[in-house]
Amino acid sequence: MPPAHPFDDDKLKEECGVFGVIGLADAANFVALGLHALQHRGQEAGGIVSYDPVTGFQSARRFGYVRDNFTKASLMETLPGSLAIGHVRYSTAGSKGQTAIRDVQPFFGEFAMGGAAIAHNGNITNAEALRRELIQHGSIFQSSSDSECIIHLMARSFQKTIPERMKDALRRVEGAFSVVAMTRTKLIGVRDPLGVRPLVLGRIGDGWVLSSETCALDIIGAEFVREIEPGEMVLISPEKGVESFHPFEHRSSRFCIFEHVYFSRPDSILGGRSVYETRRQIGIELAREAPVEADLVCPVPDSGTPAAIGFSHESGIPYGMGIIRNQYMGRTFIEPTEQIRNMGVRLKLNVNRALIAGKRIILVDDSVVRGTTSRKIREMILDAGAAEVHFRIASPPTAWPCFYGVDTPQRDKLLASHMSEDEMRDYLGVDSLKFISLDGLYRAVGEVEGRNDRCPQYCDACFSGEYPVAPSDMIQKGFQTKAAQ
Amino acid sequence: MPPAHPFDDDKLKEECGVFGVIGLADAANFVALGLHALQHRGQEAGGIVSYDPVTGFQSARRFGYVRDNFTKASLMETLPGSLAIGHVRYSTAGSKGQTAIRDVQPFFGEFAMGGAAIAHNGNITNAEALRRELIQHGSIFQSSSDSECIIHLMARSFQKTIPERMKDALRRVEGAFSVVAMTRTKLIGVRDPLGVRPLVLGRIGDGWVLSSETCALDIIGAEFVREIEPGEMVLISPEKGVESFHPFEHRSSRFCIFEHVYFSRPDSILGGRSVYETRRQIGIELAREAPVEADLVCPVPDSGTPAAIGFSHESGIPYGMGIIRNQYMGRTFIEPTEQIRNMGVRLKLNVNRALIAGKRIILVDDSVVRGTTSRKIREMILDAGAAEVHFRIASPPTAWPCFYGVDTPQRDKLLASHMSEDEMRDYLGVDSLKFISLDGLYRAVGEVEGRNDRCPQYCDACFSGEYPVAPSDMIQKGFQTKAAQ
Amino acid sequence: MPPAHPFDDDKLKEECGVFGVIGLADAANFVALGLHALQHRGQEAGGIVSYDPVTGFQSARRFGYVRDNFTKASLMETLPGSLAIGHVRYSTAGSKGQTAIRDVQPFFGEFAMGGAAIAHNGNITNAEALRRELIQHGSIFQSSSDSECIIHLMARSFQKTIPERMKDALRRVEGAFSVVAMTRTKLIGVRDPLGVRPLVLGRIGDGWVLSSETCALDIIGAEFVREIEPGEMVLISPEKGVESFHPFEHRSSRFCIFEHVYFSRPDSILGGRSVYETRRQIGIELAREAPVEADLVCPVPDSGTPAAIGFSHESGIPYGMGIIRNQYMGRTFIEPTEQIRNMGVRLKLNVNRALIAGKRIILVDDSVVRGTTSRKIREMILDAGAAEVHFRIASPPTAWPCFYGVDTPQRDKLLASHMSEDEMRDYLGVDSLKFISLDGLYRAVGEVEGRNDRCPQYCDACFSGEYPVAPSDMIQKGFQTKAAQ
Amino acid sequence: MPPAHPFDDDKLKEECGVFGVIGLADAANFVALGLHALQHRGQEAGGIVSYDPVTGFQSARRFGYVRDNFTKASLMETLPGSLAIGHVRYSTAGSKGQTAIRDVQPFFGEFAMGGAAIAHNGNITNAEALRRELIQHGSIFQSSSDSECIIHLMARSFQKTIPERMKDALRRVEGAFSVVAMTRTKLIGVRDPLGVRPLVLGRIGDGWVLSSETCALDIIGAEFVREIEPGEMVLISPEKGVESFHPFEHRSSRFCIFEHVYFSRPDSILGGRSVYETRRQIGIELAREAPVEADLVCPVPDSGTPAAIGFSHESGIPYGMGIIRNQYMGRTFIEPTEQIRNMGVRLKLNVNRALIAGKRIILVDDSVVRGTTSRKIREMILDAGAAEVHFRIASPPTAWPCFYGVDTPQRDKLLASHMSEDEMRDYLGVDSLKFISLDGLYRAVGEVEGRNDRCPQYCDACFSGEYPVAPSDMIQKGFQTKAAQ
Repeated sequence: MPPAHPFDDDKLKEECGVFGVIGLADAANFVALGLHALQHRGQEAGGIVSYDPVTGFQSARRFGYVRDNFTKASLMETLPGSLAIGHVRYSTAGSKGQTAIRDVQPFFGEFAMGGAAIAHNGNITNAEALRRELIQHGSIFQSSSDSECIIHLMARSFQKTIPERMKDALRRVEGAFSVVAMTRTKLIGVRDPLGVRPLVLGRIGDGWVLSSETCALDIIGAEFVREIEPGEMVLISPEKGVESFHPFEHRSSRFCIFEHVYFSRPDSILGGRSVYETRRQIGIELAREAPVEADLVCPVPDSGTPAAIGFSHESGIPYGMGIIRNQYMGRTFIEPTEQIRNMGVRLKLNVNRALIAGKRIILVDDSVVRGTTSRKIREMILDAGAAEVHFRIASPPTAWPCFYGVDTPQRDKLLASHMSEDEMRDYLGVDSLKFISLDGLYRAVGEVEGRNDRCPQYCDACFSGEYPVAPSDMIQKGFQTKAAQ
Repeated sequence: MPPAHPFDDDKLKEECGVFGVIGLADAANFVALGLHALQHRGQEAGGIVSYDPVTGFQSARRFGYVRDNFTKASLMETLPGSLAIGHVRYSTAGSKGQTAIRDVQPFFGEFAMGGAAIAHNGNITNAEALRRELIQHGSIFQSSSDSECIIHLMARSFQKTIPERMKDALRRVEGAFSVVAMTRTKLIGVRDPLGVRPLVLGRIGDGWVLSSETCALDIIGAEFVREIEPGEMVLISPEKGVESFHPFEHRSSRFCIFEHVYFSRPDSILGGRSVYETRRQIGIELAREAPVEADLVCPVPDSGTPAAIGFSHESGIPYGMGIIRNQYMGRTFIEPTEQIRNMGVRLKLNVNRALIAGKRIILVDDSVVRGTTSRKIREMILDAGAAEVHFRIASPPTAWPCFYGVDTPQRDKLLASHMSEDEMRDYLGVDSLKFISLDGLYRAVGEVEGRNDRCPQYCDACFSGEYPVAPSDMIQKGFQTKAAQ
Repeated sequence: MPPAHPFDDDKLKEECGVFGVIGLADAANFVALGLHALQHRGQEAGGIVSYDPVTGFQSARRFGYVRDNFTKASLMETLPGSLAIGHVRYSTAGSKGQTAIRDVQPFFGEFAMGGAAIAHNGNITNAEALRRELIQHGSIFQSSSDSECIIHLMARSFQKTIPERMKDALRRVEGAFSVVAMTRTKLIGVRDPLGVRPLVLGRIGDGWVLSSETCALDIIGAEFVREIEPGEMVLISPEKGVESFHPFEHRSSRFCIFEHVYFSRPDSILGGRSVYETRRQIGIELAREAPVEADLVCPVPDSGTPAAIGFSHESGIPYGMGIIRNQYMGRTFIEPTEQIRNMGVRLKLNVNRALIAGKRIILVDDSVVRGTTSRKIREMILDAGAAEVHFRIASPPTAWPCFYGVDTPQRDKLLASHMSEDEMRDYLGVDSLKFISLDGLYRAVGEVEGRNDRCPQYCDACFSGEYPVAPSDMIQKGFQTKAAQ
Repeated sequence: MPPAHPFDDDKLKEECGVFGVIGLADAANFVALGLHALQHRGQEAGGIVSYDPVTGFQSARRFGYVRDNFTKASLMETLPGSLAIGHVRYSTAGSKGQTAIRDVQPFFGEFAMGGAAIAHNGNITNAEALRRELIQHGSIFQSSSDSECIIHLMARSFQKTIPERMKDALRRVEGAFSVVAMTRTKLIGVRDPLGVRPLVLGRIGDGWVLSSETCALDIIGAEFVREIEPGEMVLISPEKGVESFHPFEHRSSRFCIFEHVYFSRPDSILGGRSVYETRRQIGIELAREAPVEADLVCPVPDSGTPAAIGFSHESGIPYGMGIIRNQYMGRTFIEPTEQIRNMGVRLKLNVNRALIAGKRIILVDDSVVRGTTSRKIREMILDAGAAEVHFRIASPPTAWPCFYGVDTPQRDKLLASHMSEDEMRDYLGVDSLKFISLDGLYRAVGEVEGRNDRCPQYCDACFSGEYPVAPSDMIQKGFQTKAAQ
């Protein structure tokens, strides 16, 4: 019985966060804290693998929040050692609604030269082809996850060491991958040649840390050292420190621009820029691109808040909390009543009537995906007596699905795939609706000239339809890229 | 094994929320939604009692959040009927750390003329004396809750109807009580003569609703009718509608001013005033009373946010999110590791380094209780490189415990009970520390002349030490009121 | 959702077992072991109350087997002290299928002079009248159990000590009661004037034990001292040892004869007689009263085994295990599949085909209640190829319900209430069916002259319809005793 | 935290039972019932895999009894289809005390031509060598089970069909295997060439059944067709019925003689003989071989019962239940108190004092393994006042470990490995101790001439040390067979 999502969150969802530690006693405890700080990257399940010379590799995987599982002494005692990695996940395209605990990472494999565990953030776009090939040759898959391919490719490599086998394996893989892995003696980090997903290196005392985001370094008091570079593999051991390799053919990097817009936490630093500041800057750009006369700028909490602050600052229109979020809301319900199923966004948000009534409201949200939530919010705002409702969206229209580790609806479910901005405005029933332009977004992330259309600085496929890696499994299933249309 | 609170939340805690519905099919479902909206008033446990002619009174009590228990179809099916009441609780002074499920309300009693259930927000200040007396006469108590007295007093009344018995019982009771109760045919609401805790009446279709706050009317789409008056009892039935009685001797009302400062949700309306707007106004008053030169106004999330917005607005200093809250944080941990126990506030809050570094920061918080959290936040802010830290507190110094349904530390644990403002500033290690004055607070809630010291308009005992009802149980145990000192 | 009983066990069911210990460190652990040994007297739920000067009274109640709950260190640590009592229960007439944890004993009451807990085996035949009266005077009941009356009667007594209050209370009570109770300093045992249910005293080191049966003394290594006498109350403390009182008017004792036939464990000793030996003797009497030519004597396991051994011994017909019992069978199922619901006795018993085929079988069972199981067993035996099936029953026909603490079907569901022996034989479809006579049963328990009809030595109401205490609540509801018919 | 075994059961333990059904709607329900009837072959965990064209392969694995898991409608609904197999397990040598759910069978593999699931009873004696080889070639193992080799060998076979791949795989495997497997369309059964473990074929309506024992055919009402022959593979489909193959080189069969003595249920039929009758016959042989003057023959319940009946019959000494078993005893405890850990066999058995006192007792038990339980029973019997205690054992001295799917202690823990019969008698402290002779045992199973020492009819390695298949993994680890000594 799959848990129910009573309100359509109507967001693109990052699918994973990864974290690893070497050189600290009780490393798994640090991994648990790191995963807690990365919980926004995946709330469905989490897992930790640790290694200790006495007990060998130990592993625990659990559904639910990190804080509800990996804080218990009785569980953490089963994960001893000074080397550990972990993973939080949302869900993968393949297994929606039927995720089994065996789909929860890290994945572990026992090879002739010892064991290895890997945790993967991203998505392998040729996973199905690889899986077919591997099964043909006698590999037995245990999960429905695309990431399991990596460990089977490693098992079949003829290389003598695990890092060399990992290079072999990752060279066969297409798509986006920020991988944190471990052997009995080494912590390993790898980013795909485009560097689509983030991965950073930190230092704490004698120990080293790999993390999806810097906010998870902060929680354990680790110092931010640098980002792992696109196409880089690092091997980390207490003895040799950080060894760096570049096993892939060089390509221009294409970091996911949506990490700036929504996925990453505002207190993280991406590419040297504060995520919070970038989002505030988006609000400023938006106020310049799409000004409107109004009485109050309100964020759709909490993701719209920094852009709303920027919009208010730039426009001079006061900022206020027109929508209040219930702090005690989780994501899913087990076996919910009919009424809960129908409540939708009201379980989570309430309008601050006294503030809204009679006013012209600018609502700042991070994105419009299917538009379902936006419609409900507009309705709540008007019920509360707002005079006008103007939507300002801190990203361009989301018109294309992501195949690099983000949970997106099918293309035809994306409002912007088949509606113009004006059609969307009418569909949402608001007085005005404006999205930031792609150039405006690029300016907000620091590209003062805007987007370099010949050689885009970021992956913006969800807005532009320009996929930097062809999604080959999907194409085989009939997906038409923009070029093919 | 009591669950652990790894970080000292360091707030006064409202102890209860109450909600009741009559005249709607599946009333318990509405109660569940109402309690979800009141979850901020009590997170430890919740309970619902419903009545249906076929099944009689049915009851369910659970530890944990409403959303994790009272959303399940299999549980809600056991609570049929068009009449139901519910309760969320934090914990009572008596049973801290050892709360049993039998302490969870509503309490139920079977009387000669039928059953009744009651849910109580507040605290009975002569509960221990009453309990001793009742036991002397043969009553058997099932819980350690002060509220259970009410049902035993009702059981012993010679009155012929349950409402009359409730009047008898509540006339014996001292302290603060907003009660929602039910018989087989009626929903009952009562507020103590001072009206310390809130209680409001709502209407939805043919049904009636009683709730601690208006925000819980919103979630079910009920219309706000009016507040139950201090000293009023209402009997509500589908046939007769709302009947009003005033069974107690009249006194001037003394509503809890801290409901405006912190307890109530910002989207609720108290005494005709928006709580959000009052808090913003507090920020404005604070900026006037205690201005300071600085670069950024930051709220301590989330309770300091409206006052910070007001402070920024009045002072002209930009508003920014200098501290980021982890959305996936709950309140307690079961059997936590040593490390979790020591993490404290870092599990919940992270500093937005890039925004803070090098700046003079004004931190706006709602209150200072023991000061433990404030010290940790100051430390985090300075670690992140702030140039100066100025605390501005949206309430006067909390120097006295509350005995009217709020969980407060013992007097000597309250920082303001034994330190002056300057001593507190030095203790917290900040560049400046200012609290709003009591008069400023009264102005912010609309009393333009400030506090009427001869006849205060609110209960402000936690600031002033002037208790409108003598806490007789506590006095017997040796507590010294200000007057007695 | 009540758990399902997939096969109709078709037995009378003892409703409770009680056990208490004083003067041994960690008394609750001994109580847990004693209750495990008494599990046959009640499988639905169990509870333990302990007292320690530091922690006061502590209590735990759980559904399910003792061994699944009261063996865990984490639970048992919450029950410290050298004084503890416990209870296992099947279910009471009132609450079948909807038992709540609050119906699980021991019951606890806080009186003016301190707390007391009681555990009761038996049934109070005027409980409903008492309950009405108590509610009229302001008592609030928490359970649907008849036993709760006792604690409320105690609460209302004017006596100065708990034992005196207990005497007051039990003098108001009609029916059967073997009570084990405790105050902060004393272990208390009481048996009703007729001594319907068993209660024995044991000694272990410096400690004392009260138990429903001697088999529970064996498990903790306690020595059997004597039975508590009908109408006796004992107060036990380490200082004064065992003090004996006789607070009730004297009556001739009427011990339940069915305890010998079925309820008690074969390794217990009742009234100085081995239960096993009595049952074997019943088999011998039965072989004399109702001989039949056959090839094999088979018990219906496990309760028919001793009588079958006796029958084989007396008749000279070989004894064999014609029916095999599945060792892994429990009593109830939660949310069972349709198929499980329909499996009935096959989940528990299987016929030993190879042994049965072609043979004339004597099946020895302890009783016939509704006859449902007997029919299924006959069917299984014939399917397996038996040539003849002869039932021999180790008790007289069960024609009347028990109101003294045994779960019996309503009178019209009892096969013997409306069928003669011949009619039952035809209904069950067996070649012959014979019950032991009432006199034969009395001889087997040692009354060489058989039953004294003028003044029966035992309570045999379930066979004779002669109720030694009028079941007043049931009579008020319309039950007709034999005399009344 | 592994569950604790508070009493040393001191028995050899069968490690698995297997069951499969094809051609019946809701096949998984039948498998659940079959596994319940086979629960004596493995109590630690169970698993079921089913196949339905709509949902594909579905699987559920659970720790604990079948009746506590696979009876729930909500679980069984997830296992649709007319083809299912299942497995109950005790534990394997490799993973004792740390069994993970991933070690629970059936194992499943997705091959190029579709999926297959297998359940294995027995033990693969070259599993470690095979595992090393498979890992060398890139297979990734998910469990610590020897049985997982089979599915990886199948994955690597070049054969085009699953049955052909299974033949390939099983030809590589040494040791004992009774396998039940399934593809999308076929139920498959295989027995190793020696036929060490049992496997039978049954028929019910249009469906076919494979089961470890006939008792599990009875519970679902299936008719016993025949045993699968040693070295036989059957493919079963509704269309073609049962197809038989003999893929292995022919060898003389060596069925495990201990299945007759202890492992199998007494109501099963092995090799055309009633297990109950064989055990009774063992008692008769034992009475002839080792007579003794005494007053009472008592079984050690429940496994000694049939032999005790036979002994009593042959000797003329009365049979009686001198030891009573607690019906509510399970095998393991989670987190037990110290006291529970120390209770040992008293939690399970109690002496029937009144029957034993003053008598000369013959105790009939099925085997002596480490002797720990036998010593405790002797002590309990003497404490109860027995005049003499004579042990008669229904099997020869167990002097060698089993490597064919039975959980045995290491050789030096077996009492008979280093003590003569007289030394064991003195060690156990009994008046006499006699084991049945190996020839006597062979006569009891129908070999009137006794054991054919040149070509033994059964595997009796645990008694004789003559291993029909060399335990190659163990030999590599240093185990010395009799021949090697």
